[in-house]
Amino acid sequence: MSTASDAFDGWIRTGFVQMNTELEALYFVQDDRSNVDGTGDAIKAALHAEGDAHAEALASEGNTGGGFDSAFDVLGNVGLYMAAMRRHELTNPAREERSPLRAASSLALQAGASIGMAPRMATAHLTTRNRAIGGVRKSFTSLSDEFLFIDENARAIAGMQRAADALYRIQPLGIGNPVADGLLSAAAAELRAVAVVNARLAATLNTDRFFFSVRPYYKPYRVGRQEFRGANGGDFSGINELDLALGLLSARDPSYAHLITDKMSFMPPSDQARLRECMQYPSLLDLLLAEIEGPRTPALETNARLLLEVTDAFADTARQHHHLFVERYVAGPSEALAPVHKAQVTASGPPLEVLMRALEGLRDARTAAPGLAGSRDADHRKIRRWLAKAGSCAGGSASV
Amino acid sequence: MSTASDAFDGWIRTGFVQMNTELEALYFVQDDRSNVDGTGDAIKAALHAEGDAHAEALASEGNTGGGFDSAFDVLGNVGLYMAAMRRHELTNPAREERSPLRAASSLALQAGASIGMAPRMATAHLTTRNRAIGGVRKSFTSLSDEFLFIDENARAIAGMQRAADALYRIQPLGIGNPVADGLLSAAAAELRAVAVVNARLAATLNTDRFFFSVRPYYKPYRVGRQEFRGANGGDFSGINELDLALGLLSARDPSYAHLITDKMSFMPPSDQARLRECMQYPSLLDLLLAEIEGPRTPALETNARLLLEVTDAFADTARQHHHLFVERYVAGPSEALAPVHKAQVTASGPPLEVLMRALEGLRDARTAAPGLAGSRDADHRKIRRWLAKAGSCAGGSASV
Amino acid sequence: MSTASDAFDGWIRTGFVQMNTELEALYFVQDDRSNVDGTGDAIKAALHAEGDAHAEALASEGNTGGGFDSAFDVLGNVGLYMAAMRRHELTNPAREERSPLRAASSLALQAGASIGMAPRMATAHLTTRNRAIGGVRKSFTSLSDEFLFIDENARAIAGMQRAADALYRIQPLGIGNPVADGLLSAAAAELRAVAVVNARLAATLNTDRFFFSVRPYYKPYRVGRQEFRGANGGDFSGINELDLALGLLSARDPSYAHLITDKMSFMPPSDQARLRECMQYPSLLDLLLAEIEGPRTPALETNARLLLEVTDAFADTARQHHHLFVERYVAGPSEALAPVHKAQVTASGPPLEVLMRALEGLRDARTAAPGLAGSRDADHRKIRRWLAKAGSCAGGSASV
Amino acid sequence: MSTASDAFDGWIRTGFVQMNTELEALYFVQDDRSNVDGTGDAIKAALHAEGDAHAEALASEGNTGGGFDSAFDVLGNVGLYMAAMRRHELTNPAREERSPLRAASSLALQAGASIGMAPRMATAHLTTRNRAIGGVRKSFTSLSDEFLFIDENARAIAGMQRAADALYRIQPLGIGNPVADGLLSAAAAELRAVAVVNARLAATLNTDRFFFSVRPYYKPYRVGRQEFRGANGGDFSGINELDLALGLLSARDPSYAHLITDKMSFMPPSDQARLRECMQYPSLLDLLLAEIEGPRTPALETNARLLLEVTDAFADTARQHHHLFVERYVAGPSEALAPVHKAQVTASGPPLEVLMRALEGLRDARTAAPGLAGSRDADHRKIRRWLAKAGSCAGGSASV
Ligand code: HEM
Ligand code: HEM
Repeated sequence: MSTASDAFDGWIRTGFVQMNTELEALYFVQDDRSNVDGTGDAIKAALHAEGDAHAEALASEGNTGGGFDSAFDVLGNVGLYMAAMRRHELTNPAREERSPLRAASSLALQAGASIGMAPRMATAHLTTRNRAIGGVRKSFTSLSDEFLFIDENARAIAGMQRAADALYRIQPLGIGNPVADGLLSAAAAELRAVAVVNARLAATLNTDRFFFSVRPYYKPYRVGRQEFRGANGGDFSGINELDLALGLLSARDPSYAHLITDKMSFMPPSDQARLRECMQYPSLLDLLLAEIEGPRTPALETNARLLLEVTDAFADTARQHHHLFVERYVAGPSEALAPVHKAQVTASGPPLEVLMRALEGLRDARTAAPGLAGSRDADHRKIRRWLAKAGSCAGGSASV
Repeated sequence: MSTASDAFDGWIRTGFVQMNTELEALYFVQDDRSNVDGTGDAIKAALHAEGDAHAEALASEGNTGGGFDSAFDVLGNVGLYMAAMRRHELTNPAREERSPLRAASSLALQAGASIGMAPRMATAHLTTRNRAIGGVRKSFTSLSDEFLFIDENARAIAGMQRAADALYRIQPLGIGNPVADGLLSAAAAELRAVAVVNARLAATLNTDRFFFSVRPYYKPYRVGRQEFRGANGGDFSGINELDLALGLLSARDPSYAHLITDKMSFMPPSDQARLRECMQYPSLLDLLLAEIEGPRTPALETNARLLLEVTDAFADTARQHHHLFVERYVAGPSEALAPVHKAQVTASGPPLEVLMRALEGLRDARTAAPGLAGSRDADHRKIRRWLAKAGSCAGGSASV
Repeated sequence: MSTASDAFDGWIRTGFVQMNTELEALYFVQDDRSNVDGTGDAIKAALHAEGDAHAEALASEGNTGGGFDSAFDVLGNVGLYMAAMRRHELTNPAREERSPLRAASSLALQAGASIGMAPRMATAHLTTRNRAIGGVRKSFTSLSDEFLFIDENARAIAGMQRAADALYRIQPLGIGNPVADGLLSAAAAELRAVAVVNARLAATLNTDRFFFSVRPYYKPYRVGRQEFRGANGGDFSGINELDLALGLLSARDPSYAHLITDKMSFMPPSDQARLRECMQYPSLLDLLLAEIEGPRTPALETNARLLLEVTDAFADTARQHHHLFVERYVAGPSEALAPVHKAQVTASGPPLEVLMRALEGLRDARTAAPGLAGSRDADHRKIRRWLAKAGSCAGGSASV
Repeated sequence: MSTASDAFDGWIRTGFVQMNTELEALYFVQDDRSNVDGTGDAIKAALHAEGDAHAEALASEGNTGGGFDSAFDVLGNVGLYMAAMRRHELTNPAREERSPLRAASSLALQAGASIGMAPRMATAHLTTRNRAIGGVRKSFTSLSDEFLFIDENARAIAGMQRAADALYRIQPLGIGNPVADGLLSAAAAELRAVAVVNARLAATLNTDRFFFSVRPYYKPYRVGRQEFRGANGGDFSGINELDLALGLLSARDPSYAHLITDKMSFMPPSDQARLRECMQYPSLLDLLLAEIEGPRTPALETNARLLLEVTDAFADTARQHHHLFVERYVAGPSEALAPVHKAQVTASGPPLEVLMRALEGLRDARTAAPGLAGSRDADHRKIRRWLAKAGSCAGGSASV
């Protein structure tokens, strides 16, 4: 990294965190915790000025040709700064036509374009690619609830990624290959571990702290003229790789294809590439449905059983996400909000009701809810029936 | 390719072309050549039904895992079909919320998402990657003006790409390397050849035929719910690589960064990757400005002179594009249109005036128009002054 | 796949397996089980002729441009055929200057060159990328010991790959990041699972069957003029990624750099790319040694402990490989061989003693054997001492 | 770059060049110009010691994760140093079992392995990727004949690459596409320009200076234990892409496949990737032979004519290479050598006679010499006959 970007990174890990934390303390003791106007104005001004100076310094440095890592880091730092400006209402896309943060916008646009990501802070900046230096990782504040949130999110994401990796390795083997058993078991185990992380997070994360002091940093903001939706915990490819590999959703479904396309630029390029590759494969579920028309082997039985296990474990995490996270930490508290604040509650922008319906649709697909269009429930039942024809290959040789 | 996609491809090269050509003949003899309503309805219905059947057949075939080439081809074929449906007003984004072409949308969405391109027909489908089989390349009609248009476009694009390639190869050498001379000369020569192609096209292409029978196929249309802007001749990375390498535009300029980001998904992935890479390099112009602060060498003089030649040749093509193409084939004829048709004249969607202003801005940057914000005119003059200090390294050794 | 390559693939999964199995049966009942001369000549001739016909058919088909998957498959099929020819002594590099299998050589050379792999059958063809179709995966014979071997190998390899994947995901996080705990635990768990697979294989695999009827298919053979070493279970990048990430071996060590370079072309391209990337990172061990000079945090303690666990689990698999596999299935039986057969026992070509010394060196590095040059034993002890200074950050906040 | 690698790079561009130049002056005035023993020993010792110190400093710095560019640069610098050590006989693979340059070997091995290149200095380091800084590019000496050699080589290589690029862009279009005309013309023009560069070089380069003071730096040397062949002007993929695209040589020909495979690691990774991709395409010649069985179009006639022009221009450069370069600068002077020096004359290692035969074979293939096995002469004549059936599509429509 260059000197200017080192300095920016240093500030993001120290002064920036401190000022945000102080502001959160001031907001949180107010009667109306959602209010930010007229509070801590001196701190806000300092935050604004210091961040701007860093952005200017970096912008005037010119191209450094430092490759992905350095562009990704610049994008993260400038993005954290812009997200904080948004959270403290020093900028708000609803009342502006273009971001007042000129140097920052310009830096972000170039960094984003050069690595193929949206020009804003992304989830990966705080989770899967958040480098700890001397024990300090990046964050907006030093509130323990924020650390809880980003750490457990990162762990859950990593678990999903690893489950997806396991299924990915089955593609060249085929679902009838005996060797797939270990990979399927690994996927199920990883998803069960995700469920533990999720439950732990839900048991510990303070609703108010999250809702009033953490989540507001994840709002949409403008970069240059264009507004970009907020980052969210789902901005990694693993979850969609699982959707596709398990056959629960398909890129042929227009609304899902749209969702995937929208998400692409919020993921690091390696995630994008992997997700694109996965879209070209048939799902393991479809492969299995084809295989059970053919010869029954012990390996096929084992793998069928395991694939359903993976599917069930995945469904559990989808239910958790909905009930433990979305309803509890977002929908619930939003109800209680004054209408004036309610409008800007979601990360992606649409009104809460619209978002909730979309999220319910995803949950239903992931849990293969019976009776819904496109649900794989019937296919799952078909496989269970096939499995139930017990013992029919009992004498199978050790070779399969 | 699979059987279904072979059949689709065959139809696109035969029946599809024939029906479009017949429809154009019917439209063109009308008093109001812009009108398509109530004309050739039987042909339109056949076109619709046949295309739909192909899309259905392909959609029900499932994933074939055929990689980039096959997804790109499917996207092109389904995209040509959808663009024709749009041209004949069998679909129109202005009056629909979602494309009535369900199977086609679904195919296009998946193919596009899996290769990282917008789910519509792109310029590359008809130009740089338009495979001729048995002498037949893809097109909408068999009108000679359409062939003129796509062929000369393809030649001009290829020339720009090759000029960009030449500059790209200078990056690892540095602008002061004697070896850069051949590459700079090659770039200038390619750009001059582009100017010849452009002039030839402008001298030959019939304005009315183009305006009434070719251009309407390049309109925006919906895929699923979302509307995608039309394809245009600029949807390749070479032109932007030239912008950046010559330092005429910069990814740090928010509106240019926005333009580039928007274009990305209309280019093949290899173009996207190259353009991203180029955004990480300093421009040759900036490199040169830095070098002329140091020791003067014959190689540096030669290369400075040649870089200005490339810049001039590029400016010429930018002027041509504006005056020979945009003004003549689009802006001019649009004036004469009934207001009802005027609204949908541009490929990218915005009103003609807005588009024209944006295009003028690009032309000004590419011609380094003096006195404009961000213009490199002053820098060019600085280099010319440096060059004018003649002979000062006359005794330079053969080694530099 | 083309028709000719489909036909070849079909034969490799049926007739080819059957003939090899019959030949093994004939060899195995001999007094000298190592002898193949003069046994089953009619079957050998048929095997030769049928394989040759398939290779000819494919070679005359010309380039199909089918991309990686199809070239990899062709390489695997032609490679299995050539390896079988070698095993049955229809070709032997020691007595020939060039492979008598002309068409097969030519096919293999092109396929290999076009995907950047050695032009012979690789371990991945039978393990990680061995596609089961209708329950049938590729193999040389249908002996249950061969299936045992390739399946358990594939499982162990997959486990190592997944352990390597987990460590790979720690790179962007840093070893002091609390989030690394799950990834380190996952790596340790995967390695312990590998140990279970290894033990199970050693408990089940018949020494004689393996030594006389499976291993001979993994010998070196010529393709064109050049001889290529045999495939072995280590031809995947995961093991070396673990070596590097755990700091046990380094690409700066000339003999290890040589080993890695030699292995590259025996791995699929995605493995090659990953391994190259990993060579550019510092090891987690070196990162940890640097971090413990700085502030002590609970996360750092946890991760230090877990990294040592991973290291220990890895050492166990290295010991297993040596004692359960190499000594028992290769070195032991080789002792008993007639000198005439002994010469050609190893897959890589060098005499058994030389190979054994090299393998011992690897085992020692992987077990951090104390007192050896380059051993990380001292570093491990340093970390254990640091950990032993117990409780010193007991009051650590939840945020780290 | 790190500080240590900056320092190394600085030295390579200054002190290193100066010392080599002084040594060449001493050698050249001797009666036996080939002799290096006992001359300039103090300079040699300084060169050795200074280079070693740089290598040590860099090696002890540890991994920097700087990506391709920095590894490529380190490899070049350490490789130039090792090649100079070899030239001055401070190391000689013939009398050593392993390189005495420990730190340098270790650096080179790691850098090479991490970017997939042979661990030695490659042609690209001095030509296509030789960055000039402040007007100074890398070289061994400051002799004007060396600059002549590396500059004209770089220009010729760039020309070949650009010709290959042009043909590469025809692949997605097909040889019957009218648009291919410009690309074919460009390829022919580039090759003719290469011929001019070649002739200029041959007219200017002093035979003795080249033979005695430049070429010796391109000898084989050991890195660690292994010996690597010398670098040569052909170590770039463009020439082979031309071979393949023009159908003059094929990866199915075992000796050519071997040649390509051997060359791979002497090219930068981007060249390797391109060459691999090209191996999967049918040649333009084969495509043309297929097309002329179908409908005759003006575009096909034009392209057929142009393809033969490209082929002829390529043949000319092949003849030049043989007569102007190989015979004149290598074979000729070698005749005059004392036998003791003769043994080590070629860059690739094999005796001169063997090398000359191989080079003649390549020249014959590239000139489609009649009567030779595999020659495309008959196919070229077939196309000429087809073309001679003049005017038969005179009335061709404007569309083709
Ligand atoms: C307290 C923790 C979390 C909360 C409150 C939460 C809430 C939400 C909300 C409200 C959305 C909709 C985003 C929007 O505003 O448009 C969302 C989307 C998403 N979240 Fe979470 N989330 C949490 C943690 C996680 C974790 C740990 C994961 C995965 C490991 C995850 C995965 C997703 C995914 C994949 C989406 C995108 C929609 C989908 O594909 O389902 N979330 N989350
Ligand atoms: C019965 C089972 C196995 C036997 C008999 C066996 C034996 C051997 C032998 C003899 C070699 C030296 C290769 C040569 O001839 O040059 C070797 C190398 C290797 N094997 Fe195995 N092996 C077995 C299973 C495995 C498995 C399951 C793995 C990993 C998951 C593995 C990993 C390696 C590695 C990495 C090497 C390369 C040397 C090294 O880096 O350690 N092997 N094996």
